Amino acid sequence: MKKALEGLKVLDLTHAYNGPFCTTLLADNGADVLKIEPPHGDQCRTWGPIDDKSGESGFFAFLNRNKKGITLNLKNEEAREIFYELVKDADVVVENFRPGVSKKLKVDYDTIKEINPGIVYASGSGFGQTGPLKNRPCYDIVAQSMAGMVNLTGFEDSVPTKVGPSIADNVTGIYLCVGVMMALYNKEKTGLGQQVDVSMFDTIFTLLENAIVIQTMKGVTPQRQGNIDPSIAPFDIYATVDGYVAIGVGNDRLFKLFCDLIERPDLLDNPLYATNDLRSQNYRPELQNIIAEWCSNKSKYDIESMCDEIGIPCGPVLDMKEAIDHPHVQAREMMVHQTHPTIGEMYFQGCPIKLSRTPGSVDTPAPLLGEYNEEFYKNVLGFSDEKYKKLIENEVI
Amino acid sequence: MKKALEGLKVLDLTHAYNGPFCTTLLADNGADVLKIEPPHGDQCRTWGPIDDKSGESGFFAFLNRNKKGITLNLKNEEAREIFYELVKDADVVVENFRPGVSKKLKVDYDTIKEINPGIVYASGSGFGQTGPLKNRPCYDIVAQSMAGMVNLTGFEDSVPTKVGPSIADNVTGIYLCVGVMMALYNKEKTGLGQQVDVSMFDTIFTLLENAIVIQTMKGVTPQRQGNIDPSIAPFDIYATVDGYVAIGVGNDRLFKLFCDLIERPDLLDNPLYATNDLRSQNYRPELQNIIAEWCSNKSKYDIESMCDEIGIPCGPVLDMKEAIDHPHVQAREMMVHQTHPTIGEMYFQGCPIKLSRTPGSVDTPAPLLGEYNEEFYKNVLGFSDEKYKKLIENEVI
Repeated sequence: MKKALEGLKVLDLTHAYNGPFCTTLLADNGADVLKIEPPHGDQCRTWGPIDDKSGESGFFAFLNRNKKGITLNLKNEEAREIFYELVKDADVVVENFRPGVSKKLKVDYDTIKEINPGIVYASGSGFGQTGPLKNRPCYDIVAQSMAGMVNLTGFEDSVPTKVGPSIADNVTGIYLCVGVMMALYNKEKTGLGQQVDVSMFDTIFTLLENAIVIQTMKGVTPQRQGNIDPSIAPFDIYATVDGYVAIGVGNDRLFKLFCDLIERPDLLDNPLYATNDLRSQNYRPELQNIIAEWCSNKSKYDIESMCDEIGIPCGPVLDMKEAIDHPHVQAREMMVHQTHPTIGEMYFQGCPIKLSRTPGSVDTPAPLLGEYNEEFYKNVLGFSDEKYKKLIENEVI
Repeated sequence: MKKALEGLKVLDLTHAYNGPFCTTLLADNGADVLKIEPPHGDQCRTWGPIDDKSGESGFFAFLNRNKKGITLNLKNEEAREIFYELVKDADVVVENFRPGVSKKLKVDYDTIKEINPGIVYASGSGFGQTGPLKNRPCYDIVAQSMAGMVNLTGFEDSVPTKVGPSIADNVTGIYLCVGVMMALYNKEKTGLGQQVDVSMFDTIFTLLENAIVIQTMKGVTPQRQGNIDPSIAPFDIYATVDGYVAIGVGNDRLFKLFCDLIERPDLLDNPLYATNDLRSQNYRPELQNIIAEWCSNKSKYDIESMCDEIGIPCGPVLDMKEAIDHPHVQAREMMVHQTHPTIGEMYFQGCPIKLSRTPGSVDTPAPLLGEYNEEFYKNVLGFSDEKYKKLIENEVI
């Protein structure tokens, strides 16, 4: 086996972002992912950036690489029967309909497990399959806001700030993948399937680390702190002549080296800065200003080199172009090239989970809408030309 | 089997945050996780919040529930031989030493696979096991900055902003868990082990979704956008009388309902707001101001109710106390109680991956330093009283 999940059959009913991010991780690692779209296509086919020439979504193309695509109108009885046939031979179903919709479509876990009791049935959603808010619509910004992330991001004296990228969506996809793999591992031992339920709301909540423990252990409600860490100082992001740089000086040994670097050995004699705890308490405004001034007439890359030389964790704030071009991104193969049939040459993110013997990779482009229909329905399922035509005529596919 | 990973033996050499977050997911789901600390303990035992009475770290206690703890000084030859014995019978080793350290300690993958070729050996790190920066120290803020997250978070006219909580660390732990489970699944099929390599830098890079595709497809470098979404409007966070509220009006149908709600049906006749694309282009300043004014004299919960009634995605920005107490967090069992032997009653985050047949749960408290030593070395390994005493005297454990 060249990839970890070769032979694993996944029926992918997902759309938009969290569900597809899960099946991308599976597909990158060799699972046979059949993306099943309604005849009008996954809504994310209209999401920007849109390729000028072909009109295809670059976002969809990135997110659905390595998957094969068919259409199937699950609102149609005949289509549903086809889906039930596929379920008999599948290992995993992944969906992220709004809770309740899969039941209406008669493709919910209770229905599917009657057909294939060993199925692993994974459900991503905004608020989960249970709980008072389960039926609510949810955007990434709503999950980030309600689960506590937004109030902890940004500056004390400014408004609460959402995390730029949609981390509620993509981390939900990653957790969903963990759940699928755990359920599959368990099935290897027991032969039994089960449902996996992961929500964007729960996901964000688990990322808040000690903010929750501070609240429950100390009774203190943590507030956003901008770019500092309340328990380490200096630890901040500073303006430079050509952008910003992050510096973290985690202990007394490093602080000594840092004071030498900025040519302020006198700071070591200042009792306000004698320990990390004292530095944390007394960082603002004076120590912050001293370092900000030191940074203000240097380049972010020069500061990075100087800190790196003496072992102080430091790095420039990179914009998208700078990050993509960074030699480390290149060396880690975190950007990959792919030729898409209508967009042409594409260049997007690769695989973050590096498996030494069975590495994941980006091999085949995302499917055009219904691209695999003819081959699948005629050659894999063995339908006649006539039957295939009827499926189209009757809006089954 | 009551939990998905029952019987899975994990040797946990991790410290601080990303590695332990991976083994927490494994332990919550039934794996037998043996946390192996140096005699001075995981550095994270000193991280706040610290319990006043016992001096224990609440953060450590939350992060290491469900694990058993022994000490073992891997710098010592005899300790290493004990570790090699444990490896013979283990399924998984997880570590997050700085790359190079595991080799110095002679517990790197190349050494361990000679003893147990089927081992799944998982390595979390700042920059990964390969690439030009592999040996660099890394904090969460550095990974967030260099991989592009910081530049995409915060407001256009303000400084780049780090995500409050340490998402480079915890999402790396989640990816590491995906890698472990994929490698275990593959081992079930092939009998072969392998190494899993996940870095904080790569992890952050994969969370940036279409920012990367916008850069490579359009040649435009995305900039931070505060709380708006460049392709949906209205989509923002607004001030209310008692905090903030997130509202996302994703399409024309919802915009009509929203205009009725705010009693501004005239906006529907304004050609500037005729489509979502036009609203996105023309949102600021006027449409933003109209909605901000409407929100400014209402409570965040009232706005939530009004939007919920008509199906508009919306949610209040909750602080830590409000989020913890939210009925949905409670219903989803995302907060759990646990009695710790020295801290006493604790209350912290539960399990986000809901498995229907083998649910994860929080059962046993985090180990005190070396708490399991005597039972483990005497009863599990069968060492005599004398030998056990010698291990302590010789600083082997």
